[in-house]
Amino acid sequence: MKRVLVDMDGVLADVYNRFFTLHEEETRTRLTIQDIIGLKEAEAFPGQLKWVNSPGFFRSVPVMPGSQAGLKWLNEKFEVVVVSMATEFPVCLTDKQLWLNEHFPFISWKQVVLCGNKNLIQADIMIDDHLKNLDGFNGETIIFTQPHNMNLTELKHKRVDSWPEIKKLLLRY
Amino acid sequence: MKRVLVDMDGVLADVYNRFFTLHEEETRTRLTIQDIIGLKEAEAFPGQLKWVNSPGFFRSVPVMPGSQAGLKWLNEKFEVVVVSMATEFPVCLTDKQLWLNEHFPFISWKQVVLCGNKNLIQADIMIDDHLKNLDGFNGETIIFTQPHNMNLTELKHKRVDSWPEIKKLLLRY
Repeated sequence: MKRVLVDMDGVLADVYNRFFTLHEEETRTRLTIQDIIGLKEAEAFPGQLKWVNSPGFFRSVPVMPGSQAGLKWLNEKFEVVVVSMATEFPVCLTDKQLWLNEHFPFISWKQVVLCGNKNLIQADIMIDDHLKNLDGFNGETIIFTQPHNMNLTELKHKRVDSWPEIKKLLLRY
Repeated sequence: MKRVLVDMDGVLADVYNRFFTLHEEETRTRLTIQDIIGLKEAEAFPGQLKWVNSPGFFRSVPVMPGSQAGLKWLNEKFEVVVVSMATEFPVCLTDKQLWLNEHFPFISWKQVVLCGNKNLIQADIMIDDHLKNLDGFNGETIIFTQPHNMNLTELKHKRVDSWPEIKKLLLRY
């Protein structure tokens, strides 16, 4: 059974959705995706670092559309490991596991890795929105479209824009 | 550079020291190591599951004698990754990273993995107190003596009783 690493932020967790809301609450300005294409999260949202370091932030993040049904399908066909670069922000660690337990109860705690370097983990397929994780991965790589990576072209990774596209791509196994 | 996985509970963190104290506080009875040799932690201490599920518990655990100097030495000679089976107990996740930052500030967040299955991680050497982690590891294995494993004999793992012994064992690299 092939092992698939599935990222949290920007793949299972719709962090941009929450960032747009918090930015609007704090500045009374509603940004659009067009405003921030190609920018890093902290460049697009000056409050980002403060937000992700706040207890409770992660509990308030909505799930990515289609991710619950998508991950359930993936979990029946593959060995799924949910992997998040999270140790940089200690306060989010507990929130992230509680969030997973709430929204993806079919993912056991045995299938979760919260770490500081995804390249430590052996797997066959990686689904992620960040090149820093995908580029060093020794297997099939799928980049999930998010505003910060929308402008990247000529990638060596397959691009998907949604969870249904992930299923379509991995149906061949 | 060889990669070494170093366990937290029972190797860097002297959890038994804290369990003995809490048990005495709650029951007015001081257990000794002899009382609990070969017992699982939860068998030895009826309060164990409640304690490890309590916010703040992990912040109060003392460091294992010799572990700070020992891990510092290891960190200069090897690629150290601190790995803890921790996702089963979400409340301890944040505490564990904060505890590491406090007591082992030379270990970067990039070197930490909090997970539910250590066999996902590629490495050359594993230092751990639990057979459930060591037995499935595909490399050199070192078992760190703790009360629950003291009665185990004929192991395929090298046994150490202290941090200075780890250094002695790994000096050959």
